[in-house]
Amino acid sequence: MNVSDASFDRERPDVYGDAHPKALLRAVEEDGDYLLKLSDQHIVSSDQFCADTMRQLFRLAAKYESNPTRFSSPLKGKILISAFYEPSTRTRLSFESAWHRLGGDIMSITDRSTTGIAKGECIEDVAEMFNNYGDCVVLRDNNTESLARMMDTLRIPIVNAGNGSDEHPTQAMADMYAIFKWRPELLTANFDPARRVRIGIVGIPGRMRTVRSLLKNLAVFSHITHEVVIIHEASADADLFAKGQREELESAGLKIRLESDLDAVLPELDITYINAIAWEGDSFETYGKKFILNAQSPLKKDGIILHPLARGEELGKDLDNTPHNWYFSQARGAVFLRMALLTCMVQRAERVIDVV
Amino acid sequence: MNVSDASFDRERPDVYGDAHPKALLRAVEEDGDYLLKLSDQHIVSSDQFCADTMRQLFRLAAKYESNPTRFSSPLKGKILISAFYEPSTRTRLSFESAWHRLGGDIMSITDRSTTGIAKGECIEDVAEMFNNYGDCVVLRDNNTESLARMMDTLRIPIVNAGNGSDEHPTQAMADMYAIFKWRPELLTANFDPARRVRIGIVGIPGRMRTVRSLLKNLAVFSHITHEVVIIHEASADADLFAKGQREELESAGLKIRLESDLDAVLPELDITYINAIAWEGDSFETYGKKFILNAQSPLKKDGIILHPLARGEELGKDLDNTPHNWYFSQARGAVFLRMALLTCMVQRAERVIDVV
Amino acid sequence: MNVSDASFDRERPDVYGDAHPKALLRAVEEDGDYLLKLSDQHIVSSDQFCADTMRQLFRLAAKYESNPTRFSSPLKGKILISAFYEPSTRTRLSFESAWHRLGGDIMSITDRSTTGIAKGECIEDVAEMFNNYGDCVVLRDNNTESLARMMDTLRIPIVNAGNGSDEHPTQAMADMYAIFKWRPELLTANFDPARRVRIGIVGIPGRMRTVRSLLKNLAVFSHITHEVVIIHEASADADLFAKGQREELESAGLKIRLESDLDAVLPELDITYINAIAWEGDSFETYGKKFILNAQSPLKKDGIILHPLARGEELGKDLDNTPHNWYFSQARGAVFLRMALLTCMVQRAERVIDVV
Repeated sequence: MNVSDASFDRERPDVYGDAHPKALLRAVEEDGDYLLKLSDQHIVSSDQFCADTMRQLFRLAAKYESNPTRFSSPLKGKILISAFYEPSTRTRLSFESAWHRLGGDIMSITDRSTTGIAKGECIEDVAEMFNNYGDCVVLRDNNTESLARMMDTLRIPIVNAGNGSDEHPTQAMADMYAIFKWRPELLTANFDPARRVRIGIVGIPGRMRTVRSLLKNLAVFSHITHEVVIIHEASADADLFAKGQREELESAGLKIRLESDLDAVLPELDITYINAIAWEGDSFETYGKKFILNAQSPLKKDGIILHPLARGEELGKDLDNTPHNWYFSQARGAVFLRMALLTCMVQRAERVIDVV
Repeated sequence: MNVSDASFDRERPDVYGDAHPKALLRAVEEDGDYLLKLSDQHIVSSDQFCADTMRQLFRLAAKYESNPTRFSSPLKGKILISAFYEPSTRTRLSFESAWHRLGGDIMSITDRSTTGIAKGECIEDVAEMFNNYGDCVVLRDNNTESLARMMDTLRIPIVNAGNGSDEHPTQAMADMYAIFKWRPELLTANFDPARRVRIGIVGIPGRMRTVRSLLKNLAVFSHITHEVVIIHEASADADLFAKGQREELESAGLKIRLESDLDAVLPELDITYINAIAWEGDSFETYGKKFILNAQSPLKKDGIILHPLARGEELGKDLDNTPHNWYFSQARGAVFLRMALLTCMVQRAERVIDVV
Repeated sequence: MNVSDASFDRERPDVYGDAHPKALLRAVEEDGDYLLKLSDQHIVSSDQFCADTMRQLFRLAAKYESNPTRFSSPLKGKILISAFYEPSTRTRLSFESAWHRLGGDIMSITDRSTTGIAKGECIEDVAEMFNNYGDCVVLRDNNTESLARMMDTLRIPIVNAGNGSDEHPTQAMADMYAIFKWRPELLTANFDPARRVRIGIVGIPGRMRTVRSLLKNLAVFSHITHEVVIIHEASADADLFAKGQREELESAGLKIRLESDLDAVLPELDITYINAIAWEGDSFETYGKKFILNAQSPLKKDGIILHPLARGEELGKDLDNTPHNWYFSQARGAVFLRMALLTCMVQRAERVIDVV
């Protein structure tokens, strides 16, 4: 390797700085009770979270992000079992980084084939084993049922890190955190309805776990959106939503509009959420070659793009250095959001909230 | 996932509480010298342990289990090399949890195929590498020879976590710990012989490593048993024991009886040890479809069941919520037993014993 | 397993003691500025290091090796991403041991097949993820390009732990550290040219990454060698060096001689470096069955052998217990050398140097 210069720059782009998290921190008043209550809850679905609880979680995430080295040991002595029966480096490392940054220890399972489950051990027995070995479980499994079966046995909390095509609640909450970091005023008590935003989501709500979970969270905060525009192939209309899904969202106050021409709707969108990966049985399916964003796309001037990553062709790298790129901030924020959640789950919230 | 209730209960069943470990703790007087001596020993076979050493290890395990958060850092600064060339999530996590709970750091090898050994590196060179990288090695390898070859080179202690069909000494000691937790009086100096117990073991002593190791330990404590009943298929009589194995056990004072009808003998048994997995070359073999325990089995009223887990069909889940279930307590105790052993091996016993 | 004696000896051979590292420590005067400057550098090639910087790194490595438990927490709160897309237990554990010994936490990737890269994720996005998850990256990848592509995106330092057939700079520096530990006087300011050494290297400089990197370092210290003898098969003459490689080394002052009869040249060599593994595309190739060292080889009386390990047939085990064996000391020293380098990269040098 010919190296003329191996030096590098530690400077973060402005969007990763502490200005936005600090603004979010100021926008929300602390109320630790909502966090303390999470210590008796598994985290399995976006259905579990009311607006107040999420607001406090976002606040704690922002507190962590505002000063990443301030809290280094609230999880000291706690052991995470990071059980990724469906491999995923990105999500696994995000959780593990969150745990380590708070001073905890980790045991990882990265491959189903080396486990007792592969040899036919029942999942309830695995859960019983986890009770004795750790203080918290993060589970990803493409078997949708595994999570519920473990919950029956566990006496330590479990986090759903993606169960098949069902849900991925911490990803959705990280998406919401990115939105509120971008515009902290959306979280304020005296929020002006005139400043509501329009969100476009490229995807199939009935089949994509990240979209399903995100829509549930958006419904809880329906007062911050004019509407949510679902952008999809017209031919997919029939199975766009799961049974009852749309009705549930609308009865919670969310306005939903359907569109199939991405470029036509882009100029209206404050936030465009795109996610090319749909979980379909055991394999990936690329959704909608026609739904592509790049620097030539007619984006609203101050509109932002969110993407849970990893990306495929749907998201051009030429957007990375534009102000539309909030997906990197979103990925970064996911670590702090998970730090907030994990702290509460293992009964250490009282170490990081200001008033107990 | 439709979640009506994601709350959970942290309460442990009574059998996991601190009453039994505390009773064990009171039953044995501390004598730290036996523990200090372990710092110059590899742990490879159940042959190594005299009654006094085991008694002190059980005492230390009970001290840990009585108050799991009391000692969080005796292994601070120590590195475990967790080398599982034969994959085993359950045993690996049990050792790793034990190490982390004492404040140590871990490097894991979970897959033979990614190692130098797979490329033909000689095992002595691997051991030399381990000398420089860590403070203790836990080895599982289906090659029975690997352990002895590593021992020749190591200047740090190694624990045999199962070497082929040979031995699994820490599992056997965890089994013994479960027995003594159940009835701490069995460990007392003035133990009343009238209260000896009868133990049934379903399995083939000559071919199952857990059974082989357990019998060796039982022989050391032969004064606590009326007899050990080996329950097996009559057709297996010929190779039930390895050459000299039975003679050795009997000369140590263990009374051995053979039976082939499980249900007929169950009503007599205070402890039934069952273990359906026999190691046979590189693959598993299910032993004795006819030897099955479930809630309908004619168990003695206060008889208990032990099983090293993972279980197969031989152990009905309908037993889980009965007082016969001591296999979950056994699995839990294995972590504390390993904590006790590991503490001694890396010369940190003096940090946890009361009088040095 | 029949165990007559499971006891072991913690005593290290003299060559692993602290006499040599302490002598090296005394031979070099501390100048921390060279170490502080490393905090803004990726470590990708042996080209990056001037003599003064290496001298200070060797000094810090020797400080660590002289008293291995003195510094246990300079990396507290720092997270290493240990990304081995090409599996290598030896190098991975060496880096991980170094990091743990300094009190840091680790997240490991041990298998490319479980990663986003295997699913087609671009490597720049992986690097962006690493920015958010850790404080330092150690990368091994048989794709030579991955390193440079990650560097473009990273805002945290990366270490090249072997990129295809290109370079392996920390291995080469560990080789140099072994040489200077053996004869610390070679590092002194008033080094007597009459005491220069002759080094033989068995291998193909144009195709072996360890040899390529080592020669670059030797060129920087060309004043300590009479000459470097490249020992190779005569038939390999044509592609022995890469284009311009030999000229570059010679213009830096290194005298190079070519030989093809190992035994004929051995009696002249103070240091013999042998390394049987050549990286050739995705597979290993054994180089030169005829170049074999063993206890019968006509080695110079006080000549030493270096080998980056793992070894093949080229290095006889009957040399292990002879004074020629410095390859075990070399392997051991690699941990301390990496400790020195990693400390500097994550801006913690000021915690371990004497005067800031």
